[in-house]
Order: sequence, then structure tokens, then C-alpha cells
Amino acid sequence: MKTSLDCIPCFVRQTLDAARQLSADMAFHERILRDVLRWTSAMDLNQSPPVLAQRIHRHLRELTGNDDPYRQAKEDQNRMALALLPKLEAMVASAADPLETAIRLAMAGNVIDLGAHRTVTASHVRRSVQHALSEPFAGETNALRQAVSTAQNILYIADNAGEIVFDRLLIAQLPPAGVTLAVRGAPVINDATMADARATGFDTLVAVIDNGSDAPGTPLDDCSEAFLQCYHRADLIIAKGQGNFETLSDAPGNIFFLFQAKCPVIAAHVGQPVGTHIMIRSNGRPGHSGEIRHAGGGPTEYP
Amino acid sequence: MKTSLDCIPCFVRQTLDAARQLSADMAFHERILRDVLRWTSAMDLNQSPPVLAQRIHRHLRELTGNDDPYRQAKEDQNRMALALLPKLEAMVASAADPLETAIRLAMAGNVIDLGAHRTVTASHVRRSVQHALSEPFAGETNALRQAVSTAQNILYIADNAGEIVFDRLLIAQLPPAGVTLAVRGAPVINDATMADARATGFDTLVAVIDNGSDAPGTPLDDCSEAFLQCYHRADLIIAKGQGNFETLSDAPGNIFFLFQAKCPVIAAHVGQPVGTHIMIRSNGRPGHSGEIRHAGGGPTEYP
Repeated sequence: MKTSLDCIPCFVRQTLDAARQLSADMAFHERILRDVLRWTSAMDLNQSPPVLAQRIHRHLRELTGNDDPYRQAKEDQNRMALALLPKLEAMVASAADPLETAIRLAMAGNVIDLGAHRTVTASHVRRSVQHALSEPFAGETNALRQAVSTAQNILYIADNAGEIVFDRLLIAQLPPAGVTLAVRGAPVINDATMADARATGFDTLVAVIDNGSDAPGTPLDDCSEAFLQCYHRADLIIAKGQGNFETLSDAPGNIFFLFQAKCPVIAAHVGQPVGTHIMIRSNGRPGHSGEIRHAGGGPTEYP
Repeated sequence: MKTSLDCIPCFVRQTLDAARQLSADMAFHERILRDVLRWTSAMDLNQSPPVLAQRIHRHLRELTGNDDPYRQAKEDQNRMALALLPKLEAMVASAADPLETAIRLAMAGNVIDLGAHRTVTASHVRRSVQHALSEPFAGETNALRQAVSTAQNILYIADNAGEIVFDRLLIAQLPPAGVTLAVRGAPVINDATMADARATGFDTLVAVIDNGSDAPGTPLDDCSEAFLQCYHRADLIIAKGQGNFETLSDAPGNIFFLFQAKCPVIAAHVGQPVGTHIMIRSNGRPGHSGEIRHAGGGPTEYP
């Protein structure tokens, strides 16, 4: 999807937040802010929001000289989520509909997002789990169940560190032989990379690839050839998080998007309030995403 | 005061809000947003926030070809406030301390600010009056009472249309012969100009001058010689609203600032929560504002 004018003030604020998180040097905060203001004054709004975020966070890494400034945060988030895992697995095991509970919990994990939130604590995560388990959830589960039952090659595109532990619950409901997990190609914000897949035990569960990109999403024209082959071979794609929705909502593929709507632009785009847990399905016609359905209501047309 | 980095994302958002309020043309929204992003990327942060707001709103007027786009809003706000005036005057007349009640109501009127709020309805104004009358208020009233009793030349610097009707209550507590009301020199947002002073009956109450500037504040280096003479002659200045505080907080003069703290930057600057009604006094040493005191607590140092 394109970048909305409403994304711009939000990007400016996020840049300042990120700069302050990474350094106490006020001259650095001012420099990166001025750079981002200059870029955005001339930016191509046909690009998706994660493409600008990619550029901002590359620049933050260059200026701080730290190629993975969120490394410690990601390790903490993985540990926090792994500590919850046995309890979450027990919830799925005892659920009347394990697939639906696993979907809900995978969505709950999407709260662990340092692009949208300044900090994420265990208490935020517990509230998100509670919310995910209790909120109304429209009937896309059966569509995903049906798609899973016939799929030969499932590509699961992860989003953030910590969150990928929650993805293990949903992946456990899929046929393991046919599943590939994709992570980012290089560090950006707290997005999951190969290091996080390994730290959370994924490398022994399913095939794991990286997408070759350091965008906080999946811009196909920035992804590696190996990832694209896997992407186009997949007959079912599950894509987690807003960044994957923003970069793939107009892409070909039989995609189920699972995310929390974290900003007014996305919420308006899918016709739901901010904070809603969304499962949107693209209809998979190559090159055209066509009609989508979301968790909270009837069909929604989007370009 | 200087512009904080935190003001920048807020300016970008305000620009977009204002552009949308003035036109439905999305190309216009994009153009003004890109222009403001380019300016802010190179702006002098030693200038006060109203200096950038002045430039933004000049450009909005140029691009829309409308030299007073908030005219209708200002007329509506004046009418709404005039309709409340008899009731407000009765509140002051029956108050145990009419000066304190008039100060509280003058602060309540500061809610009528289209720079900070997208719309202001009669219900917002009623809530603001309720809040102003009921919230704790520390003892600056006596300092103002004392200053009024000895002042020969009082300059009352108004802020917004509608709000100036509330200022009539406080001005009625001052010695009329020695009071001059100052309004902006030209339209900017819903700031009060000479037209609003006339529409609300001020021209028959006290002397009224304009400051010669189209900034939403009082940047002295942009004001007319006539205003500056009046400013420097005043032995007591009452300045309403955040924009006047932002432009005059480092200026010489025996100034009482009365305003609602509408943003986190100002709130942090004065050490009070957002939404607090503030009366801050500068100590009047020429060229140095020195120690200030605010309504809610002890002395606060600021540069």
C-alpha cells in the first residue's frame, strides 16, 4: 500500500523516539530529524511506509555505528516470550478449537513491536493475550483451516523478535514438512532475523530462510532471489504484522495477513478501530489482491 | 523560548490538519506538507515555535488565495462567547474574590484555540469554564492584585477570537484609564485581530492597538514601532495564551502569562501536567526573565 500523508508526522515522531532510544546525544537527534524531514519532503508516496522506515533505520545504524542497536531488546523479548511459551502451549492444547486459539495468540504476540511502541513489557504482553482471547473474532478460521488442509508449500513470514515465539503456536498447527519460516535479511528495529529464529528454537522445527532485505516488512523488489522463489512457490502465505501487510497488500499470492491495527491509517484502511486484531485474506489472483475480508465484518474492497 | 525537537512532528501534523480544514484538494495538502518538511529540515531552532507557525500560515493563505481563512470561525467564536458573557459577568459579580474569578475565566477562554484544537464547541468552552472554576489555584492572584494596584500603564496582550470576550472580565477588574489591549496585526489561525476587538465591543472599553505582526504570538522583532513603544512603556503586561508565552518568555517586562498548557513541551517547561491552567510571572528585569513562579507550585528556574 502507498504511504498516506498521515504517515509523515508519525514517521517524524518515530524518528525522534528511535534516535532518543539509541543515543543521549542531542546533536544526533537533531541531525537525524533534519535528514528525515529533508527526505520526506521529496519522498515518493507510492512507496509503502516500511520503505521509508528502512531508510530511516539504516541511517540511524550508520550514524550510531551500531549495526544492530535493538539486539539487547530482541534478546530480552525472546526470553520473555519463551518463558510464557509452556503456558501458551497449554492454552492451545486445552482449547476447544486449537487452531483458532493459536491464531489468536499469534496475533497477541504482535504487540511486541518497537516500531509502534516505545517499550513492551511482560504486562503489555499479558494484556494483549487477554484481549486476543476475549475479543470477538469473525469466521476466517475455517478459511485458513481449509487453505492449510490443501496447501503443499506454506510460507510463514514472521514479524518481530519475541513475537515469533507466539508464531510457534500457530506453526505447530500446520503440517511441518511443508512450512518455511521467513525472517528479515538484516537487523531493523526489533524485527526478527535468523539470530532470533535460532534463539527461539525455530531452526530445529521448520525450514528457515531470510528475505534478504533490511526493511521492516517484505518489499518484494528488495528481497533476495532465494526468498522470491520460495514466495512464488508457496500456495499459502501467512504474513504477520502491519509491515508485512503494508508491503504485501498489493502483491500476488494466497496471503492471510494477521496483525494488530496499530495506527489510524491502517485501521481506516481495513475499516476497523485502532487496536483491533485483524485477519485479512487476499484472494490470491497473481498480480491482483482483489477482494479482502477481515476479522471484524463483511467484504471490503481496496485497490 | 526556543523550538524543541518535539515541536517538529507536531508542526507537521498541525500543517496537515490546517490544510485539510481549508481545502479538500489533496494535491494542496501534499504541497504544503512537503514545503513545511523542507523548511523544518533547515529551520533555526533558536526561533520560537510561533515564528514557524507564522510562516506556515502565511503560506497556507498564499496557496489558498484567502487572506483570512478562519474569518467565519472567528465570527462564530466571538458570537458564542458573547452569548455567554452575561452569565460569566454574573459569576464574577457574585464571587467572593472577583479578581480571582475573572483570572480563572480568562484562562478558561484560552480553550478557544484552533492552533491546538481542530474544533472548539460551546460544550468544550463550558467544560473549560467548569475546570477553571474548580481546579486548585496557587496564590499568584495577590501578586497580580498588587501589580495592578501600582501600575500606571497596563498592556493586555490578547490571544484568540472568542477568548477575548473572556478577557473583558479580567480587564473590567483593571483601572480602565491605564489599559491598552493589543491584538495581532493581521489574521493568523483564529488569533484575535482588530476586527475581533471591534466585534466584541472592545473599542469602546479601552485603547486597542495591533502589534503589526501576523505571528500567532508576539515576536518583538516582528512587531511595529507603535506596539513596541506601548510594550516598553507598560509597567505591567498581561499576556494570554501559549503563543505569547513562547514568544515573550525570554523578553524584558513585568509580565504575567496566563494560559492553558496545551502540549507536553510547554507542560514540561513549566513543570505542570498538560491541561493545567497556568499563571506564570516573569520578574521583569529588563532583558532577563529570571525566576518564574507558576500557579501550581514553587519556584521554577528556566533559562
